Amino acid sequence: MEGPEILYRYRREIEREVTRALSTGDSALDEMMRYQLGWAAEGTPNLGKCLRPSLCLLACDALGGDLEAALPVAVAIEFVHNFSLIHDDIEDGDDTRHHRPTLWRVYGRDHAVAAGLALWTKAYETLDGATAGGLPAERVLEARRVVNAACQNIIEGQHLDLSFELRADVTLPEYIDMISRKSGALLSASLRVGAVLAGANDEQAMLFGDFGLKLGLAFQIRDDILGIWGEGSATGKPVGADIARKKKTLPIVHAFEQAVGPDRDLLRAVYGSPRIEDEDVDAVLAVLQRWNCRYFAQGLAEDYRASAMEALSRAQIAPDDRRRFDDLMSFVLERDY
Amino acid sequence: MEGPEILYRYRREIEREVTRALSTGDSALDEMMRYQLGWAAEGTPNLGKCLRPSLCLLACDALGGDLEAALPVAVAIEFVHNFSLIHDDIEDGDDTRHHRPTLWRVYGRDHAVAAGLALWTKAYETLDGATAGGLPAERVLEARRVVNAACQNIIEGQHLDLSFELRADVTLPEYIDMISRKSGALLSASLRVGAVLAGANDEQAMLFGDFGLKLGLAFQIRDDILGIWGEGSATGKPVGADIARKKKTLPIVHAFEQAVGPDRDLLRAVYGSPRIEDEDVDAVLAVLQRWNCRYFAQGLAEDYRASAMEALSRAQIAPDDRRRFDDLMSFVLERDY
Repeated sequence: MEGPEILYRYRREIEREVTRALSTGDSALDEMMRYQLGWAAEGTPNLGKCLRPSLCLLACDALGGDLEAALPVAVAIEFVHNFSLIHDDIEDGDDTRHHRPTLWRVYGRDHAVAAGLALWTKAYETLDGATAGGLPAERVLEARRVVNAACQNIIEGQHLDLSFELRADVTLPEYIDMISRKSGALLSASLRVGAVLAGANDEQAMLFGDFGLKLGLAFQIRDDILGIWGEGSATGKPVGADIARKKKTLPIVHAFEQAVGPDRDLLRAVYGSPRIEDEDVDAVLAVLQRWNCRYFAQGLAEDYRASAMEALSRAQIAPDDRRRFDDLMSFVLERDY
Repeated sequence: MEGPEILYRYRREIEREVTRALSTGDSALDEMMRYQLGWAAEGTPNLGKCLRPSLCLLACDALGGDLEAALPVAVAIEFVHNFSLIHDDIEDGDDTRHHRPTLWRVYGRDHAVAAGLALWTKAYETLDGATAGGLPAERVLEARRVVNAACQNIIEGQHLDLSFELRADVTLPEYIDMISRKSGALLSASLRVGAVLAGANDEQAMLFGDFGLKLGLAFQIRDDILGIWGEGSATGKPVGADIARKKKTLPIVHAFEQAVGPDRDLLRAVYGSPRIEDEDVDAVLAVLQRWNCRYFAQGLAEDYRASAMEALSRAQIAPDDRRRFDDLMSFVLERDY
């Protein structure tokens, strides 16, 4: 795996804590939780990018917090993220994730939902355990509030996303609101919680949260771009994949808002029909090109990057840490997978 | 509605707090949460029995705790209960609850799952808010731990319940373990949390929790009896309803363990077939009668009652409060709905 330093910096500690939290249970749900977190038959989990716990720990680190004490909270956030991935995979009908069959494909839908819920309670159990590491109860309680509020946003965002599939008239502000909740909220919470655990004051914690929200928006918009124009060899999906699935991602929302004449008629006809054929995908790709939807999306992501780095500069952290966040931003906006 | 005093004692306060917690949001999920909690077009919710928050408050009351401060926690438990009901209704395919269409029947399955999750986060938000009422942070944190552990048990119990449907060889201890989690855990938590909020020591809190667990077991076993022999006019279900749905409730588990010869063959044939016909229901009812399954179940529920009251007597509460719990037990074991 390629990527910036931050994706490796705390990896060993995160793996250790994930292993500690999940390795003991012996029920069917415990096994499913381990599967979701990438467990092979034996040994340590094969985690994904671990972006959220890494960001939580980097924020804590940059403000001089106790990393070892923050570790259970960081891992709790990764569990919450995986809970949302389980639901995403079910709602989107996705068959694979990280080159393995998705949880619901292996265990069935009802069982996957149950495992997702179990993982959520495991997240709170792990988070609550953070007082044992010496963190003050008030900081842990504040971390819980921030994480729970993020959960509310994720659930609301996933629900909005579902409802958008049935509508042709989703506006750009509505779309940004939806991804702010679905993708931005937990990244925002990751950084904010890291700051809270380090004892940051409210303003500093909010600046970290703001950075995380903008990072999340840039991340999701890049995801939207890759979902349409990503190369199959890197993303595991064919070009036009999100069009074939009728997903109303940012480039499509922009096209619906901008296109006029025959292009608009074509979009309405394609997204109003029960099934999208291969030639429809090509036609929509052509419409997106004529209305510069890819460049619009990438430009918006760059705007969020600038806004994120502006928030971070006001949080007054050391240049080395600032560079680490900046490297991550570059990675998010340039990645091909 | 009939029933013991405890089901009315705190009703007005519970309704007020439920209204406060749920009346402000204006998203589609907020509306679904209100529907689940019995909201009519206008005004206050038309709640169900509110057994769990009532028990939480009675435990708190009996130990001299601050009822007003405990109210958000009690209501949070009712929200957790309703979260589990939403999933129960989906898993069982139930069309009605409290004489209204179930949430998933009105809004669809995916949306109902999302509303259930939203209700769960609302529970934690409401619980966290209890510090504002003057409760010490340590007691609120302990309440969260108890409620979260109950959630883990509920999820595990619902998952076991699902897996039992595919098995003919469920043993009585396995069944009791399952209902301890699915039905006992939250009743146990309700009473234990009430004691914790009143400042009870660990032993006293555990005795209340033990009472709640046994109450939950007696409650579920009575439910199992009503699911098979309940009169349609009171329960809203025909006699033999749980047989027709192939639910492996206590009388059936007992019959599978006890019956020999042709009766055993009949049970295996009926529960092994893809569909149960009306004449199968009658045949199973006859088998249950020959093996005294109803009396066995009611006897077991009475045993749990005795064990519950024994735990309560060790908790040393005033005679009036003890009588209130005893009345509730009589209601649980004699109710027809």
